[in-house]
Amino acid sequence: MDLQGSFHVYDTTLRDGAQQEGLNLSVADKLNIARHLDGLGVGFIEGGWPGANPKDTEFFRRAALELDLKHARLTAFGATRKAGMAAADDPQVAGLRDSGAGVVTLVAKSHVGHVEKALRTTVAENLAMIRDTVSHLRAEGQQVFLDAEHFFDGYRTDRSYALEVLRTAYDAGAEVIALCDTNGGMLPGWVADVVHDVIDSTGVRIGIHCHNDTGLAVANTLAAVDAGATHVQGCVNGYGERTGNADLVNVVANLELKLDRQVLPAGLLREATRIAHAVAEVTNVPPSARQPYVGTSAFAHKAGLHASAIKVDPDLYQHMDPADVGNDMRLLVSDMAGRATIELKGKELGFDLSGSPELVTRITNRVKELESQGYTFEAADASFELLLVEEAEGMRPSYFEIESWRVITETVQGAGAGEEAVSEATVKLRAGDARVVSTGEGNGPVNALDHALRQAIGQAYPAVAKFELIDYKVRILDQGHGTDAITRVLIETSDGTTSWVTVGVGHNVIEASWGALIDGVTFGLRRHHQA
Amino acid sequence: MDLQGSFHVYDTTLRDGAQQEGLNLSVADKLNIARHLDGLGVGFIEGGWPGANPKDTEFFRRAALELDLKHARLTAFGATRKAGMAAADDPQVAGLRDSGAGVVTLVAKSHVGHVEKALRTTVAENLAMIRDTVSHLRAEGQQVFLDAEHFFDGYRTDRSYALEVLRTAYDAGAEVIALCDTNGGMLPGWVADVVHDVIDSTGVRIGIHCHNDTGLAVANTLAAVDAGATHVQGCVNGYGERTGNADLVNVVANLELKLDRQVLPAGLLREATRIAHAVAEVTNVPPSARQPYVGTSAFAHKAGLHASAIKVDPDLYQHMDPADVGNDMRLLVSDMAGRATIELKGKELGFDLSGSPELVTRITNRVKELESQGYTFEAADASFELLLVEEAEGMRPSYFEIESWRVITETVQGAGAGEEAVSEATVKLRAGDARVVSTGEGNGPVNALDHALRQAIGQAYPAVAKFELIDYKVRILDQGHGTDAITRVLIETSDGTTSWVTVGVGHNVIEASWGALIDGVTFGLRRHHQA
Repeated sequence: MDLQGSFHVYDTTLRDGAQQEGLNLSVADKLNIARHLDGLGVGFIEGGWPGANPKDTEFFRRAALELDLKHARLTAFGATRKAGMAAADDPQVAGLRDSGAGVVTLVAKSHVGHVEKALRTTVAENLAMIRDTVSHLRAEGQQVFLDAEHFFDGYRTDRSYALEVLRTAYDAGAEVIALCDTNGGMLPGWVADVVHDVIDSTGVRIGIHCHNDTGLAVANTLAAVDAGATHVQGCVNGYGERTGNADLVNVVANLELKLDRQVLPAGLLREATRIAHAVAEVTNVPPSARQPYVGTSAFAHKAGLHASAIKVDPDLYQHMDPADVGNDMRLLVSDMAGRATIELKGKELGFDLSGSPELVTRITNRVKELESQGYTFEAADASFELLLVEEAEGMRPSYFEIESWRVITETVQGAGAGEEAVSEATVKLRAGDARVVSTGEGNGPVNALDHALRQAIGQAYPAVAKFELIDYKVRILDQGHGTDAITRVLIETSDGTTSWVTVGVGHNVIEASWGALIDGVTFGLRRHHQA
Repeated sequence: MDLQGSFHVYDTTLRDGAQQEGLNLSVADKLNIARHLDGLGVGFIEGGWPGANPKDTEFFRRAALELDLKHARLTAFGATRKAGMAAADDPQVAGLRDSGAGVVTLVAKSHVGHVEKALRTTVAENLAMIRDTVSHLRAEGQQVFLDAEHFFDGYRTDRSYALEVLRTAYDAGAEVIALCDTNGGMLPGWVADVVHDVIDSTGVRIGIHCHNDTGLAVANTLAAVDAGATHVQGCVNGYGERTGNADLVNVVANLELKLDRQVLPAGLLREATRIAHAVAEVTNVPPSARQPYVGTSAFAHKAGLHASAIKVDPDLYQHMDPADVGNDMRLLVSDMAGRATIELKGKELGFDLSGSPELVTRITNRVKELESQGYTFEAADASFELLLVEEAEGMRPSYFEIESWRVITETVQGAGAGEEAVSEATVKLRAGDARVVSTGEGNGPVNALDHALRQAIGQAYPAVAKFELIDYKVRILDQGHGTDAITRVLIETSDGTTSWVTVGVGHNVIEASWGALIDGVTFGLRRHHQA
């Protein structure tokens, strides 16, 4: 199907979603999320604002080299030219032009109050800014979309000017005009009326961009589509400023499963639950269990009440088959991983489990047990693969035997609070035929442990010299208990060519980190020895 | 206004909301929540199922003695009589009759599939059960509402039977029939069509009960009201099974603020934010910052670009006045922070900086410098306030002087990898006139440091005994460098009444945690000494 054709699923997680309070994405995070979005099959991924923000400039540079998108096109977001300047001379416009993105989404004012009070220019100059910038980028060979900011409020304030903005952009070559409910105050009936009028009056191709301030972002998006919009914008997990943007997975699931409109490549909606959770691991924002379609509670039934009737006919108690979004019905608490998921994940890692129902059962049970302790395998494929190998071969891959470890962190002698602290770790283990005691230093306890561990096994396994710990994430589970809570650590290790993620869990953050470190080194050595 | 009259706001937090996974309410919790709901001005509070559940029986007994409701009427929920038995002889019906509740809401099947497969009786007997139970309770002097379970799915399966159920209940004396989207699969247009048809065909008074499985519970509720429903059911904070019930505060705010329908006593919607958070304290479910209307982020603005325009005209950037729901506009101090943001933020914290341009410049520069090092003040108001006080008064508030600290984490003697590790911290400092050396243990290094620190200053400042670390977040910045990267820690400290968030940054995660810990204790002591 043509994802860039008659209907657009347009993701803005990396740009508008990143406006969420407390959400802070590195360039590596953004590349990682872009891969997940591509795996979901969206048509467009808005990557950020190159030129305005050094991190976004870097993202587009690295995306061109490192991203191999199967479905999506990368889109650069930016503003129309400054007042009183040629588009070709505006360095901000140059940033968009030179981003390497095939599509540019320009944000433009369509509300007279915003033109005058925020932009501080005239309504005529604003139209010229739109016309010039769209024309310039089109002439330079880029496809152009326009985000009409504050459109619905602007339409109410001055309908004729708001429509003039759309016509101007469209006539200059913008392909789609996304009507933005920037302040998020609309209701579905109002959105429908405006979209109908806009399409009747201007004939432009309309997109929709909603915020959730009235709790209606998804409903407003669907109302716009019903009224003729053919381009929907939103963010994974509904991320975004204030109450968030429209949850794109929620919108797409409603379109495909409720309204029978296929908008993603066939079968990819079944990846939705996995991808929504994987993105949440990257953003480090705990996902809501109650999230429609993909939440861990979305198909959870309290046992007892309905259980027997559910056994007779599960369709009596669910509005759809959870497998359609890669989720599972749950009757028992903490039954997160279904057999189908395990089989699918195994296949993804190169293990055909379809002929081994007993093995699938054993793995499913282990995963459930570990997940109830706080582990997650959504983002930790390497730890999952070790578990799978352990169950398949009867033994966990092991290259060394830990005797004990210790790590000390202290202020440098004579330095007070706020000064640098140093860490020193000691690891005692057996590797090959030797017992080794090794001490490593680091600027943090995990860093010190990593150094001590790799030094201790370096004699027996020289390959570990190449291993590098490239990402480290900590999540506190059971919030409300502070430092007494369970800690989950995700570690990404690289061998310079590829990288892999492992997970560790414990009451003690250092202990959890140690578990993930051991898995990381073990996985790397196993891969090295197989190669 | 007559809350039990022409329009009903009907809360089911204590019954259907309590079905949420992980939510567990004691009788005292339920009484507490009922008082909050009454303070919001809802017309009906569904208290539970007396007779079926000993805790609910106890709730109704105590409610009669202890609750002094100003606005709401208490409602008992229960089922129609058993098949093949007189309503008067059914002990479950007796539980409703004897509950002391003036209103009983009966749940009844309106879907032939559920009658036959789940209830295992005939469609005729189901009608008789409804007729008999409604008549019996009416004869005993109670007001009766009916929840038509699985109504929308039932209507699709057998419209004529579904309508027959409504007519039977209505003719027997049920005052309102709430149509339940029990499985939560509906869209607003579908709900509107069914409600229109039901009202046209039967003339009964219609209520609406929606679940959020399609992310549309609020939209579906509004669609039903638009089609003629005059009774809305929902739960505070959208609690409920699976993805939850319609968020009642969200529904009411849309009705009052967007559709100009006053449904609560005048002025009480302004209590919504306080009450939603107070209920969350009772349920111990962390509230979502992104919750529409009442979330802490619902009116938070990040973009520094907008701050100057917000000063000119805040209405350009918000869909309503946050005070209408008792919420506040917040400006987030982010790396795009300009002077305008700092000034507004200061005002929010009670510092008038408008007459001190030099001070604003100094603070802005400090924030920018610290943000470039990895600090964030977006979520750490307490650290920002300490910085502001430091710049305004020339000195950072300080209650003790750190000499040094050390923390050791190690495996328990003889235990190998994967076993529990323990931490022990030693802090040396001066507090008051004394030099103190104190050692604390913990199940993690930060836990141990927190114990050691509070123990060390407890003699000089007994107030710290009440302080508790209730949330701990770790974020690695500059990913791609793993454990060599900069670490940012956010710590939330509580004194049992309020809580505050502080930030620490460092190469070493322990050092960053220590910085946030020190700020947390300092902020708490300063507040305590001011009080």
